[in-house]
Amino acid sequence: MTLDRAQHDKLANAIRALAMDGVEQAKSGHPGLPMGAADVATVLFTRILKYDAAEPHWPDRDRFVLSAGHGSMLLYALLYLTGVPGMELADLKKFRQIDSKTPGHPENFMTLGVETTTGPLGQGLATSVGMAIAERMLAAEFGKKTVDHHTYVLASDGDLMEGISQEAIALAGHQKLNKLIVFWDDNGISIDGPLTISDSVDQVARFKACGWRSEHVDGHDPDAIEAAIRRAQKSSKPTMIACKTVIGFGAPKKAGTSKAHGEPLGAEELAAAKKALGITGGAFEIAADVLKTWRNFGAAGAGARKEWLARYETLSERKRAEFERRLAHKVPAKLDKAIVAHKKALIAAPQNVATRKASELALEVIVPLMPELVIGSADLTPSNNTRTSHAEDFTPKTPKGRYVRYGIREHGMAAAMNGILLHGGFRPAGGTFLVFADYARPSMRLAALMGLPVVYVMTHDSIGLGEDGPTHQPVEQIASLRAMPKMRVFRPADTIETAEAWQLALERTDGPTVLALSRQNLPQLRTDGTATNRSAKGGYELLPAEGGKAQVSLFASGSELELAVAARKLLAEKGMRARVVSVPSLELLLQQDEATQAAVIGDAPVKIAIEAGVRFGWDAVIGHDGGFVGMHSFGASGPYKEVYKHFGITPEAVVAEAVKRHNA
Amino acid sequence: MTLDRAQHDKLANAIRALAMDGVEQAKSGHPGLPMGAADVATVLFTRILKYDAAEPHWPDRDRFVLSAGHGSMLLYALLYLTGVPGMELADLKKFRQIDSKTPGHPENFMTLGVETTTGPLGQGLATSVGMAIAERMLAAEFGKKTVDHHTYVLASDGDLMEGISQEAIALAGHQKLNKLIVFWDDNGISIDGPLTISDSVDQVARFKACGWRSEHVDGHDPDAIEAAIRRAQKSSKPTMIACKTVIGFGAPKKAGTSKAHGEPLGAEELAAAKKALGITGGAFEIAADVLKTWRNFGAAGAGARKEWLARYETLSERKRAEFERRLAHKVPAKLDKAIVAHKKALIAAPQNVATRKASELALEVIVPLMPELVIGSADLTPSNNTRTSHAEDFTPKTPKGRYVRYGIREHGMAAAMNGILLHGGFRPAGGTFLVFADYARPSMRLAALMGLPVVYVMTHDSIGLGEDGPTHQPVEQIASLRAMPKMRVFRPADTIETAEAWQLALERTDGPTVLALSRQNLPQLRTDGTATNRSAKGGYELLPAEGGKAQVSLFASGSELELAVAARKLLAEKGMRARVVSVPSLELLLQQDEATQAAVIGDAPVKIAIEAGVRFGWDAVIGHDGGFVGMHSFGASGPYKEVYKHFGITPEAVVAEAVKRHNA
Repeated sequence: MTLDRAQHDKLANAIRALAMDGVEQAKSGHPGLPMGAADVATVLFTRILKYDAAEPHWPDRDRFVLSAGHGSMLLYALLYLTGVPGMELADLKKFRQIDSKTPGHPENFMTLGVETTTGPLGQGLATSVGMAIAERMLAAEFGKKTVDHHTYVLASDGDLMEGISQEAIALAGHQKLNKLIVFWDDNGISIDGPLTISDSVDQVARFKACGWRSEHVDGHDPDAIEAAIRRAQKSSKPTMIACKTVIGFGAPKKAGTSKAHGEPLGAEELAAAKKALGITGGAFEIAADVLKTWRNFGAAGAGARKEWLARYETLSERKRAEFERRLAHKVPAKLDKAIVAHKKALIAAPQNVATRKASELALEVIVPLMPELVIGSADLTPSNNTRTSHAEDFTPKTPKGRYVRYGIREHGMAAAMNGILLHGGFRPAGGTFLVFADYARPSMRLAALMGLPVVYVMTHDSIGLGEDGPTHQPVEQIASLRAMPKMRVFRPADTIETAEAWQLALERTDGPTVLALSRQNLPQLRTDGTATNRSAKGGYELLPAEGGKAQVSLFASGSELELAVAARKLLAEKGMRARVVSVPSLELLLQQDEATQAAVIGDAPVKIAIEAGVRFGWDAVIGHDGGFVGMHSFGASGPYKEVYKHFGITPEAVVAEAVKRHNA
Repeated sequence: MTLDRAQHDKLANAIRALAMDGVEQAKSGHPGLPMGAADVATVLFTRILKYDAAEPHWPDRDRFVLSAGHGSMLLYALLYLTGVPGMELADLKKFRQIDSKTPGHPENFMTLGVETTTGPLGQGLATSVGMAIAERMLAAEFGKKTVDHHTYVLASDGDLMEGISQEAIALAGHQKLNKLIVFWDDNGISIDGPLTISDSVDQVARFKACGWRSEHVDGHDPDAIEAAIRRAQKSSKPTMIACKTVIGFGAPKKAGTSKAHGEPLGAEELAAAKKALGITGGAFEIAADVLKTWRNFGAAGAGARKEWLARYETLSERKRAEFERRLAHKVPAKLDKAIVAHKKALIAAPQNVATRKASELALEVIVPLMPELVIGSADLTPSNNTRTSHAEDFTPKTPKGRYVRYGIREHGMAAAMNGILLHGGFRPAGGTFLVFADYARPSMRLAALMGLPVVYVMTHDSIGLGEDGPTHQPVEQIASLRAMPKMRVFRPADTIETAEAWQLALERTDGPTVLALSRQNLPQLRTDGTATNRSAKGGYELLPAEGGKAQVSLFASGSELELAVAARKLLAEKGMRARVVSVPSLELLLQQDEATQAAVIGDAPVKIAIEAGVRFGWDAVIGHDGGFVGMHSFGASGPYKEVYKHFGITPEAVVAEAVKRHNA
């Protein structure tokens, strides 16, 4: 069923009406984008998109990502109009209210039918690249009969101005992700005014330069929009369709201006807009015939879904079980046993290697068990040790490959990882230097907010990277990541803790994990604890005080744990009793109940933390009067052992701190 | 004097030899880029660049930015060869050693002649955009006779793959910064291997789409390189010259491969390379005639510099004094008086406004006094309140304008601000939402590392922004910025503290400042303290306990200070004595001597911190057992007062915490 123009307009105007009303009721929000992009969205949802509103989780649905998340009322209106379960008019009336299904920006954890949280500009676009990667990978594994869908994105000027957009489109173009189709809402307006005051990029030419198909279209001409999409579907490249639109389309005074962007139209302008658009009825009133037509479109995909189900049933039982395990992000039952065996082997034959190497050793065990692992690196493969002996590159010609060459695009990588995970079927892990977590931070924050269990393999984790100097030496990154809600940071000290951290990261289902790994070799300090995962509470006593109650507690993470062990020995020679507490995850320790924390932290009168990073955050363990041996500034270029000495991070410095405090 | 090809080769090979030797001696580093780009650099430094090696700070020098900072030996070799004071062969031999002038990546604070710290990819390119902006602004103010120079950049594949490059080139293209000329070292190699495994962008087309001139050139053909630069100098647009080069040029086995990128060539390959290039002599030996020729080029600009000085002397004394004040980044003497007067006026007529508005009020006073202030916003002007009544936009037609429309490019803005400051003559301040500090973080880190006194005006600083929801509500950003060395964060509580924060930010010369400002209105709480800047120590007692020794200390920053004041009153009604400590800058407080800290923190048995952010870092004040009323998760979308209630950040919650701890 293709609508004639008048019918189309009625449907598109229903979106416009709800967007205007929702924003007006909330007394805040963005009416301009939904009004401007309503025609594009209506064409997509009535002529193109493969979906069944009753089953928003159908695995083979087309994905629609509203990268311009501020236009959330567009999405909420579509969910209501097409009939997604649980999205009622009452919900639209609670737009931007606490605990509503209609928050200011789309949140996938609040609202059924929202594919990904968007709002920070550029993120939706970059996330969609990951979705398209996952679609291709999953199709290669399970066949086109089971996996064959498109990813559509609506992006704004802001999405394309953010730097992450470049990383995303370059990656998509390189991978020839031809099932990715992006609509650019080319309305020429930003918050400061006409876009011409800050931008003059020829976006169509830019996308072409990045390996995309790209063309202009009138964003208010349904047939032209449809034709452009049909052309895009036939391309061997991803497509960007620049849709020329009028922001706030229909508002007599504010349309085409920044006044339509981010505030309610006001009662008068709203009424005038509805009149101009031929919309009758009061606020939130949708004519019965319009709603019925919309609902018919929302249900139209049910047939396709049932056909898909029939095809799916023809898969072998084993294949279906695997497909369902993968979509549920359940780790294989064998994982725990394999990790325990790996730890036992390490205890039997200790390896004094860098934890980045320890990570590789763990992955050599894990990767064969977990075909869902999609690992990659932002052009630091030989440094991150992310590519195991089993790896095959993911390329247009080898879509079954699970190793992604993300290029020097940390931000794009992190966003793509979000998309790979959100799509379903895969567990992504990506590598870079820890210091470049800063480049990826906005996407890492979205992973934390959405609770996505992705894994960041961040090597060269302190001044221990040595010669590259302060631009490459993280000193505050660990603290800054610990501060982020739901982000978990492990800084393992040896091969055993590294294996435990990988296990915890993969078994986690409610958020992302950073593995902060050393460049330099470290001694294997753990000699037991293979059956249980001792890192699971964030910290544990590695070595007790000997000969009496502890006078000193030494807390350390990662590469500094060996300094704590050495300091304990030196203190013993001075007749002082010290215990050593390994803290692979400070924030995880601080999330334990008070009794557990108290047991791990202990009550030794002198408390000292040792970490080649800033003190910030450690006071929760050592207190204001505790000692800290670590960094108080940025790092310096030099061979790493000299850098450690230069900044006074040595067993002797720990001893001096302990003695000073003991005698105070 | 233009060199013939043989002479050119000798000079270029001197760079190659030193780069090979330096990396070999250090046993780490990147020989490939200096060897590949030596011809481009030699053409630039012998035929084009306006510089006097003896006076690297000459204000009207051309700037050369090595965005590909890993190729630092290229720069160190040039500094030595051209004769920059203090760069000796002995320094080159200490490449990548502690405290040397030749750290792993160029650090402008370690080495005379280095324009900016580079290494994190994309930063040099984006910083250079700011330099070109500053050049144009300063020329518009002081005249072309005093300011008329180019900015040249050598960028690598990685620089162009990082997203920040898009923000930078879009901004440069839009502003038609035609004195910005970028060489792309198009060597087709990255760490993972051939660039083709991760990239297929047509960079020349991409730059053209962004408003640049752009062309290909043989990067080993000196005359072709020179001709391309001459064409670029005549353009009305910035120019990107794609220089096709061979990485590790001259190394018989490793040239053109990723093995030449980031590790020493090894003795054998090094010897073979020298032989192939016709380089004689041992390690670090430069033939006397070659060095002499290089030194002649290094001194060749002395005449131009003296002519410039003669022209400069013709400026009025007042103009010269201003020029020198501006280059020295000295604030005008009047600033302190003006701020005190502003505070007095506020005390006389209190204003209960959002601190973003308070910032605007302060700027209305400051801007007329400081023509060096270059303010802007990443497309949030009406939200950031950054544009004062005096502002004129900086555009190609109005180069005297001081207000920059950075577009939706937080990262590019922060990097450009670094460049504006590094160029000299200006103090940049840029606005965005605090949550988007994450997007700008790598450039903010460089500002901190370099100690650049730029100012970030970051509004909408907590869940107080309300309806936009968790993607836009910073909860961990304040903590993550406090953790960064040399970064100073102020979260002022009212109009007075906002004025004080602005004063401290502008008077600071050794690092950047974040002003975290509220969207919502706040009461003016300060009723005194106009003569001294009470925020200068990071924290101070706003209200003492009444009627005896304090039983409770309430610490708060920004918008939560009013909650502390309200809680103190409620506690008094319960017969409990509480004092209120305002902490506009937690990390600044923690940098004070122990006596000052002890006085501010006090010894009340119950300590409670109140901040609409995460607890991380506050334990240094309140201890493990202290109370915290703030955020323990991401935020939520809703009207801000309801969001505060939802998360239990209320005076009543503070009272409950205090009573619970008092009775414990």
